[in-house]
Amino acid sequence: MAQKPSIPKGTRDFSPVEMARRNYIFDTIREAFRLFGYKQIETPAMENLSTLMGKYGEEGDKLLFKILNSGDFMRDVDSQSLADRNLPRLTSEMCEKGLRYDLTVPFARYVVQHRADLQLPFKRFQIQPVWRADRPQKGRYREFYQCDADVVGSESLENEIELLSLIDMVFSRLGVRVCIKVNNRKILTGIAETIGEADKIVDITVAIDKIDKIGIDNVNQELRDKGLSDEAVEALRPILSLAGDNSSKLDALSGILASSEIGMLGVRELREVIDGIRNLDPKCDVEVDVSLARGLNYYTGTIIEVKALDVEIGSITGGGRYDNLTGVFGMPGLSGVGISFGADRIYDVLNQLDLYPEEISTDVKVMFVNFGQQEARAAARVINDLRKAGVAAMLYPDASKMKKQMAFANSGNIPYVAIIGESELAGDSVTLKDMQSGEQSTITRDELIRRLA
Amino acid sequence: MAQKPSIPKGTRDFSPVEMARRNYIFDTIREAFRLFGYKQIETPAMENLSTLMGKYGEEGDKLLFKILNSGDFMRDVDSQSLADRNLPRLTSEMCEKGLRYDLTVPFARYVVQHRADLQLPFKRFQIQPVWRADRPQKGRYREFYQCDADVVGSESLENEIELLSLIDMVFSRLGVRVCIKVNNRKILTGIAETIGEADKIVDITVAIDKIDKIGIDNVNQELRDKGLSDEAVEALRPILSLAGDNSSKLDALSGILASSEIGMLGVRELREVIDGIRNLDPKCDVEVDVSLARGLNYYTGTIIEVKALDVEIGSITGGGRYDNLTGVFGMPGLSGVGISFGADRIYDVLNQLDLYPEEISTDVKVMFVNFGQQEARAAARVINDLRKAGVAAMLYPDASKMKKQMAFANSGNIPYVAIIGESELAGDSVTLKDMQSGEQSTITRDELIRRLA
Repeated sequence: MAQKPSIPKGTRDFSPVEMARRNYIFDTIREAFRLFGYKQIETPAMENLSTLMGKYGEEGDKLLFKILNSGDFMRDVDSQSLADRNLPRLTSEMCEKGLRYDLTVPFARYVVQHRADLQLPFKRFQIQPVWRADRPQKGRYREFYQCDADVVGSESLENEIELLSLIDMVFSRLGVRVCIKVNNRKILTGIAETIGEADKIVDITVAIDKIDKIGIDNVNQELRDKGLSDEAVEALRPILSLAGDNSSKLDALSGILASSEIGMLGVRELREVIDGIRNLDPKCDVEVDVSLARGLNYYTGTIIEVKALDVEIGSITGGGRYDNLTGVFGMPGLSGVGISFGADRIYDVLNQLDLYPEEISTDVKVMFVNFGQQEARAAARVINDLRKAGVAAMLYPDASKMKKQMAFANSGNIPYVAIIGESELAGDSVTLKDMQSGEQSTITRDELIRRLA
Repeated sequence: MAQKPSIPKGTRDFSPVEMARRNYIFDTIREAFRLFGYKQIETPAMENLSTLMGKYGEEGDKLLFKILNSGDFMRDVDSQSLADRNLPRLTSEMCEKGLRYDLTVPFARYVVQHRADLQLPFKRFQIQPVWRADRPQKGRYREFYQCDADVVGSESLENEIELLSLIDMVFSRLGVRVCIKVNNRKILTGIAETIGEADKIVDITVAIDKIDKIGIDNVNQELRDKGLSDEAVEALRPILSLAGDNSSKLDALSGILASSEIGMLGVRELREVIDGIRNLDPKCDVEVDVSLARGLNYYTGTIIEVKALDVEIGSITGGGRYDNLTGVFGMPGLSGVGISFGADRIYDVLNQLDLYPEEISTDVKVMFVNFGQQEARAAARVINDLRKAGVAAMLYPDASKMKKQMAFANSGNIPYVAIIGESELAGDSVTLKDMQSGEQSTITRDELIRRLA
């Protein structure tokens, strides 16, 4: 006997109800992208491994799903790699292609490949699944969607302001209370420079991030353990104590980083971004947070991260400015800034808070009962007119017992049931039953269409 | 130096213009699915190879893209298969997963896996890419989309009628002239039975299909070459000469197949389907075509195929009824009927005939010129209001020369350019330029929103 089939671990099927909810999220994000003038592209699920390898660090290379060459995949395998069971070498001998790991590297590849056709600044969005051979766990999947918007070819901070405004639109439309945190990589560099520990940026930002949880004394001890001098730890104290609103924090940073040219540039940039978004009266909180160190090796200016306020979950959206997206593909000097909405985490947040609007539904509006061929023919004509008027409608396909047909409508949450039986057939009418109130009335077929359309 | 990057052969990038066109097709199909009460599901790109293998014939197994196991993929490889370079065995030892080859097998797997949660009849649709390691050629890709609608758990012919009506809606909305051809597998069985050559169905249908091209004498010769007796060839003559409208063909078939029980059942079914769709006044031609032998080993009743009338291309949509979708996964006896729209071929047809409506566009409606920070702040507030009113709008991000900014708007086909310069800033106004007519006028910002919304 066949075993009950299953799907690979870390992957999911989406039922009609789940699809309706996910589409609501994707549609909201897509509409915001459109309103902001981002243009959609799509890239293939499979990329050449030469495009993907080495772009996500050594760990990332291992997490790429590789595709076995079709035909004789052993053709280029040499005996020595076999004898040694040399996995990386065997992989490159047997596999030319891999599944995309994110949307950023394919976008960079796209920009370089199609540069002759692109008009800069190029604002693109992309909503597609990505695949990672991560260990599956709660909230972490091997196939998940990313929703990315980037603009390349412009260094203006207007782009950052616009992305913050876009984030604000998406989450206020979804009804999710969030805090949008903003930092600037140059400020982090400036801090490390100012306290004389330029190579300890990571340790310093990790420490800053922990201050609320473990207190200043423990943070300082950790920093000394990491090798920071007592002077540096002391110099860091005012940064660890940054408080107040965004203006106060920026003013304090101006004082602290006065001697660091790059630090002061970071403060000016951050101030311009904060002023710019405040000018647009955002609904969400926007907060300067110097502990934000997301993508430290990657971002060169603004860093953005969004946290949900009412659910314990990691970052649900993030992004920032990078200086050299396409350098690795031979096209240096192209600056860009982008954000990525984590659709699957946003889905988890909306599920937990039950934030879906009522009208999201997978259901048809009206089901016609099937009393046999003659009645079905008449019903089919009315259904045809309903569909042309934009009303989702169906005929129960079989002339089953009335009870069975009504049970189908009930469990499918279909709000109306229509009946064309013997008397309605004679009278050119239709009986409409409101499944919620139980009310029913016999009306003309034109009236039915007017009422449901 | 890095080489110019590329993508795997047989795959494609889609630019913003291409995406807008493809979305138009997908949206049209999706909306029809919705109006007909089909509910969307999605399944993972990767399925277990145990789910996929053996479902598409020996050739199909070779065309599956297999994914190398992550971690130590050599763990389960035994030395003998290595020494023999036994490809099928090595594949099964190194790969557990593959990319989906179509949407039908994943749907069958879905139905069996989730049967406890499904209410029958279950009407599902699914729009997702599939992957095949076919030799790439013009119009054939290794990654392409399928758009499938199926209903399982109902044997009623109302389902067939509805699917024909759905096809009619999609192609009449897309403006593509098509002929919807319909046949019934039972008629083919009946023909073979009637002429005493039950095992020659394939040869017979191939011959029927060629009659227009090579004439009846050549067809008869071919049939004799295939081993049909002279009596059988003679008995087939009236079927090869079927002509006239659908009623004439069905009447003729009734006479010819009178002695075959299954043949007559096929004629009755086909007549009911044809009567049913005629009842709905379809815009497209619907034609009985007994040469239609699509999926002969798979379909058990109605067979459907759609041909474009104005473009030389293969079938652009097809489907039919099957009796045992889920048997292979241990759930026998579930009948269903479905259709699959070939989105990539439909895209080729629309491109060739240039059938896209004018309003399909990737472009923003209005671009604001950037004159520097102060003006940009004012523009950003107006843009913010425009977006809230549903108008796609953008600020040119950099305060570049006017000429460069206007060139961007021009080449991006942006219909309006808005200007908030020094005088507009003072007057709380905005100057709107219609890029097509060249007209421009200075108006209030509220008036601008009213005019563009």
